[in-house]
Amino acid sequence: MIMSRIEAPRDEAVTNLTDRLLAGLPTEAVLTDPGITASYAHDMASFCPAGAPAVVVLPRTVEQVQHVMRTATELRVPVVPQGARSGLSGGANAADGCIVLSLTKMDRILEISPVDRIAVVEPGVINAALSRAVEEHGLYYPPDPSSWEMCTIGGNIGTASGGLCCVKYGVTAEYVLGLDVVLADGRLLTTGRRTAKGVAGYDLTRLFVGSEGSLGIVVRAVLALKPKPPRQLVLAAEFASAADACDAVCRIMAEGHLPSLLELMDRTTVKAVNDLARMGLPETTEALLLAAFDTLDPAADLAAVGALCEAAGATQVVPAEDAAESELLLQARRLALPALEAVTGTTMIDDVCVPRSRLGAMIEGTERIAEEYGLTIGLCAHAGDGNTHPVVCFDAGDPDESRRARESFDEIMALGLELGGTITGEHGVGVLKKEWLARELGPVGLEMQRAVKQAFDPLGILNPGKLF
Amino acid sequence: MIMSRIEAPRDEAVTNLTDRLLAGLPTEAVLTDPGITASYAHDMASFCPAGAPAVVVLPRTVEQVQHVMRTATELRVPVVPQGARSGLSGGANAADGCIVLSLTKMDRILEISPVDRIAVVEPGVINAALSRAVEEHGLYYPPDPSSWEMCTIGGNIGTASGGLCCVKYGVTAEYVLGLDVVLADGRLLTTGRRTAKGVAGYDLTRLFVGSEGSLGIVVRAVLALKPKPPRQLVLAAEFASAADACDAVCRIMAEGHLPSLLELMDRTTVKAVNDLARMGLPETTEALLLAAFDTLDPAADLAAVGALCEAAGATQVVPAEDAAESELLLQARRLALPALEAVTGTTMIDDVCVPRSRLGAMIEGTERIAEEYGLTIGLCAHAGDGNTHPVVCFDAGDPDESRRARESFDEIMALGLELGGTITGEHGVGVLKKEWLARELGPVGLEMQRAVKQAFDPLGILNPGKLF
Repeated sequence: MIMSRIEAPRDEAVTNLTDRLLAGLPTEAVLTDPGITASYAHDMASFCPAGAPAVVVLPRTVEQVQHVMRTATELRVPVVPQGARSGLSGGANAADGCIVLSLTKMDRILEISPVDRIAVVEPGVINAALSRAVEEHGLYYPPDPSSWEMCTIGGNIGTASGGLCCVKYGVTAEYVLGLDVVLADGRLLTTGRRTAKGVAGYDLTRLFVGSEGSLGIVVRAVLALKPKPPRQLVLAAEFASAADACDAVCRIMAEGHLPSLLELMDRTTVKAVNDLARMGLPETTEALLLAAFDTLDPAADLAAVGALCEAAGATQVVPAEDAAESELLLQARRLALPALEAVTGTTMIDDVCVPRSRLGAMIEGTERIAEEYGLTIGLCAHAGDGNTHPVVCFDAGDPDESRRARESFDEIMALGLELGGTITGEHGVGVLKKEWLARELGPVGLEMQRAVKQAFDPLGILNPGKLF
Repeated sequence: MIMSRIEAPRDEAVTNLTDRLLAGLPTEAVLTDPGITASYAHDMASFCPAGAPAVVVLPRTVEQVQHVMRTATELRVPVVPQGARSGLSGGANAADGCIVLSLTKMDRILEISPVDRIAVVEPGVINAALSRAVEEHGLYYPPDPSSWEMCTIGGNIGTASGGLCCVKYGVTAEYVLGLDVVLADGRLLTTGRRTAKGVAGYDLTRLFVGSEGSLGIVVRAVLALKPKPPRQLVLAAEFASAADACDAVCRIMAEGHLPSLLELMDRTTVKAVNDLARMGLPETTEALLLAAFDTLDPAADLAAVGALCEAAGATQVVPAEDAAESELLLQARRLALPALEAVTGTTMIDDVCVPRSRLGAMIEGTERIAEEYGLTIGLCAHAGDGNTHPVVCFDAGDPDESRRARESFDEIMALGLELGGTITGEHGVGVLKKEWLARELGPVGLEMQRAVKQAFDPLGILNPGKLF
């Protein structure tokens, strides 16, 4: 990092930086009050250090973003791009003396085309706002991270976000056709296309997706849309063991079913949800599996999947009778994280994805780790994708428990790698997992990743200290 | 290029190169007979220059590929990777004095997992062989380029190949989860994952897909599979004008249908197919549209789409009665290219993809270009994707006609760009379109593409002279 730790809130360097920024930005787009800039320091991850921003900028146009990046390059000031700061890996945490570049004011939906099945948006558009807007045209933007009511499309692109829909519809990456990106030096790069297909040169679009703001600033995205499917119908199946539930998941997938979601909650999670919201979920069950179909005849699909659950030893199988019952079950799943947070006050959410055939081993191993470290670890999983979210619950005021939380969190990642998985299925690396990225990628992988970073950001000013 | 043009077939440098290669490869894997090596000079593109390879190597193991690349790096010899050489852009054409690295002997399917819905393959596996192998497990590998009976998965990855299925199932890129890649200096890089999701670091997997062998040598791929869908049923609709057919395409897509193929053939193509194979297609029609569904009730879907075709002015709508009739219609479509080749002996196949809302303008413009240049240009299109294949027919023995063919080919690309499209939807850039790549990407785009190339292949030995 070029700038040293900012001690005083408005030393000479900061004044100079602010003046330069104000030459190309309106006054209200440049925030320097330390009380306010400090509120932009963090995303939602635990245990991730954050520095004090020198300034927060809120541009509204591409040209303003270019001005910010030109200024940053000239003055060698680090830039941390931010969306809604709902990330879970510290990827949007400020660096000391940095410019926080918040894209939240660039929130226009520029175009929706039913024939071309695309939307063109600015990065600050809220995921839910886009979903609702395209729905009016009979279209569907699938990626649905749990934070969809607050997170931005730019943030989703930065972390290649997933959600509940992925087992059928895939992650954000699969919906990004083209991008406008402001490079570190302020030049504007257009990647990709508005067309359904295209292979003209290297796929730089996909390189930016999931790059956590470390290669450039996304200022515009062309997104692919799907036709709006029929409303999904949900089934709940109870199991006497997580192993049985995982067996059911394997049977469902091996039989060729295409559920629109396939989620698992363990006993700890179910109890936490009941405690938080009195949902009336069955607390005697060891694992609750939710399966849904958004097909023309979801009841038939649910019947077939229900039979597979029973064959795998389900103790009870309850298909929802209608959309309202389905929605309640989904609500329960969406509450899993806040519910687990309420257990001890603080959580660390892991995000290990394994081949789904190894899901049972992953869950069993997580239970072993919880026992070993004497901690509550609730587990919910996008089971159809093998993407587990073990949630380590702890009291942040208890240093020993905090240490055990961190260690168990790491053990879970080690287990995931051992099972042929990845340390992050959808939350990204950020600050939280950067030591682990090196372990997953190995030395050649890491070196080539760094070479790419070097090609796009030779001065290292874009979101420094993240990923590597 | 480091080596100068090879005049004599076995000068000192070549002998040295061959000896070094033989130190890590069995004798039968190193071909030096100029009569044989010359047969590896070309892929299937017209008008693309090719050099004389110094040597052709046919490794069977990853270690052998690493040996080849280490040798090439040490001696600064260009390497041209090849699959089945069925490409249409000269991307696999030899450079003078190069090592042709044919991956065709690395043709093992290493794993098929129905639970994880993945296959692990070597690059030389034939597309059709993989498709049939996974079908036995109730699985489906969608990408189906017309050359699927001969082309290799490695070649498909190199060009991010498409096919007829893309309108519903997308292109090769969407099925590549992870890769083993031998880098220019012989190091082995593993990218991506075996899991359904994963965001650990930059998406290098996707960077290699479509990179035409210019960034590394793919030696192993983890591919995503889909459950095998029901057999598709095809409908044929005749139109009095291409504009009406394009209107039908727009209506079908805007109404939210998900056909498993949506293909268009113009009058010239229909006639050529009849001439070649006496298929009995309706020659009075100006445009023939084929739509298919692989849903549970394809007849219902075809009825809905048939009604939309009639609303768009179709003069006749004929749904196939069964799988056999459907297969005949697909056969007709698959014969389009050989049929057009038979018209004048030589063809140049363009591959312009436009937003599907501009498909009508693209076809109308192509007709205008054909007239202007006094040439037969047959047109078939993956209409649902807006991906047109104007096929310029000409007599290669007639210099003036050849010149007009080239010029009209370029005009078609210019038109595609003007309509917001891309110069290549699925065939790649290779040698054929490298001047046009610069026009599509612009100076910043081209510079960043080159920066990526530089990061992976600093000596420029991998498939030189392609893309840029």
